[in-house]
Amino acid sequence: MGNSPYADSSGSFRRQGPRFADRIVAEPSGDDQWPAEPDRYRLVVSLACPWAHRSLIVRRLMGLEDAISLAIVDPLQDDRSWRFTLDEDGADPVLGYRYLEEAYLARDPDHGTENGVSVPALVEESTGLLVTNDYPQITIDLGIEWAKYQRPGAPTLYPEGLREEIDAVNEGVFHDVNNGVYKAGFATKQARYEEAYAALFARLDELDERLEDQRYLVGDHITEADIRLFTTLVRFDAVYHGHFKCNRQKLAEFANLWPYARDLYQTPGFGDTVDFDHIKRHYHQVHTSINPTQIVPLGPEPSVWLEPHHREELGGSPFGADGTPPEPLDGPLRPLPPLDM
Amino acid sequence: MGNSPYADSSGSFRRQGPRFADRIVAEPSGDDQWPAEPDRYRLVVSLACPWAHRSLIVRRLMGLEDAISLAIVDPLQDDRSWRFTLDEDGADPVLGYRYLEEAYLARDPDHGTENGVSVPALVEESTGLLVTNDYPQITIDLGIEWAKYQRPGAPTLYPEGLREEIDAVNEGVFHDVNNGVYKAGFATKQARYEEAYAALFARLDELDERLEDQRYLVGDHITEADIRLFTTLVRFDAVYHGHFKCNRQKLAEFANLWPYARDLYQTPGFGDTVDFDHIKRHYHQVHTSINPTQIVPLGPEPSVWLEPHHREELGGSPFGADGTPPEPLDGPLRPLPPLDM
Repeated sequence: MGNSPYADSSGSFRRQGPRFADRIVAEPSGDDQWPAEPDRYRLVVSLACPWAHRSLIVRRLMGLEDAISLAIVDPLQDDRSWRFTLDEDGADPVLGYRYLEEAYLARDPDHGTENGVSVPALVEESTGLLVTNDYPQITIDLGIEWAKYQRPGAPTLYPEGLREEIDAVNEGVFHDVNNGVYKAGFATKQARYEEAYAALFARLDELDERLEDQRYLVGDHITEADIRLFTTLVRFDAVYHGHFKCNRQKLAEFANLWPYARDLYQTPGFGDTVDFDHIKRHYHQVHTSINPTQIVPLGPEPSVWLEPHHREELGGSPFGADGTPPEPLDGPLRPLPPLDM
Repeated sequence: MGNSPYADSSGSFRRQGPRFADRIVAEPSGDDQWPAEPDRYRLVVSLACPWAHRSLIVRRLMGLEDAISLAIVDPLQDDRSWRFTLDEDGADPVLGYRYLEEAYLARDPDHGTENGVSVPALVEESTGLLVTNDYPQITIDLGIEWAKYQRPGAPTLYPEGLREEIDAVNEGVFHDVNNGVYKAGFATKQARYEEAYAALFARLDELDERLEDQRYLVGDHITEADIRLFTTLVRFDAVYHGHFKCNRQKLAEFANLWPYARDLYQTPGFGDTVDFDHIKRHYHQVHTSINPTQIVPLGPEPSVWLEPHHREELGGSPFGADGTPPEPLDGPLRPLPPLDM
């Protein structure tokens, strides 16, 4: 058995929960609520990270690009965690930070990398303070609390009448899929791995069946539930299947999940926020406890994501009756071309 | 970069060649030739090893089970290499050895594990001397030199008129496929990995095209060429795709190679000599330089190997006009049930 920085003594993966759960809302009340205002916050993401990826998709779908600026960290952390080495002189041009840790320390001088520095992070630009890293709440709030600054035609991702169903789907997807792949990949004991694998594929089978005759997970349009599942699915064959040993089958071998994932990928806001280079380099080069050679696999070919999906035949529409897709991106997501490997 | 016991300082995998190239032949001439005689030699294999697997298939196809006895080693080597821990009291019942190394040392007191102890190995039962570990010659000689002891209907695996073509196919398959997966998997430098990956999939593409309208690689029947390719293909999705990062696609995603491999798998002598448990445990638990957790992936499901292949529609026949399939095995290949993992 190898030692792993990601598993406890029982061989199980343990995810650190969000530590800074302040919210940014339309009408703040109380010390832990901040006002939704344009040009005030900076969203810091890694394009590698599925949890951060959710917030990037929602920011695009809501048309909040002009209201909330974006910083993209290097996919490879060092021992001070996420860093701004893709930016000129290695520092974020707005915050001036070299490490995301600095925003955490500005907020709490006792909270450095050893306590967990995660993305997505919303940071106040003027003070450099971390406001929140509470990823499940961040996407909900970007969808609801920022209504005043959203683009015309922005979809409703968490509609009131469907919240209970969305929450129920999200709960199973979180434990068995989003976090499940990590539990499989970071297990240091065979039994723990096998438990995670069984739960993962049981849940994927259930979702595959659910998607047989409906285009999206809940209701007739894209919701939070689809976004949360998508950011794991898009990484599945590139990373989780091999690196995390989630190999009962590829995503591309599921009858419904695979066209469903392609349908989303081909929807503006989804595929255009995916960076397979960052994804693959991050997982394979950072997790030396499971890939000590740091070799980054060349496969699989990403072009398959563009194959026709025919899911429109099931009815439904991505953004609802009044919704429209976001405008195409006017440039690449990230500031620098891929590094040579 | 991790250190690897399998790669040199350039990051490339280096395979040790056969060291003991004596032959067992019908009519020996010279000190390095031994007589083909029943009840004289013991074939030592690991069911995990693709090089050893070839000899196991040929022994079955030729019906040499009664003439040449079989020893199966534990799929997990220790620091003295292959061991007989699956046998009662941990010793081979015929040779009395606990380690295959003992046969090598009996032959050459200076040749222990540090010089390479490999399977397949043919060992003289009465003296315990290693005779040969020259795997490419072993299968040729089992097919030709043991004619007197072969079963009625044994096929001709290396027919005179096709040898040049078989050798040419084997040459490309050896470098790019059989050994190519190891070069990809054991590379410690990204560039070396990418070279091996490119050569591997270029060769597989070429083979896939070759097999589009012919059932077997050379001529109309199974030959040495098919056996040598098969033992790598049958391990591809279970081990090489993930563990060795050969992941442009699964074998199961090739249009012709996949039904071709299933066709062979379903032919007596092929699938009945495959042990996925030994294969998966060996690679994932022995190569700690690339899988330090030693977790053995649960996937993929092996049942897909039994799906219909429809390759008989291409014409040809497995064993030629006068050939017949070998009798079904009268028991399991290995002496003990799978170990608990």
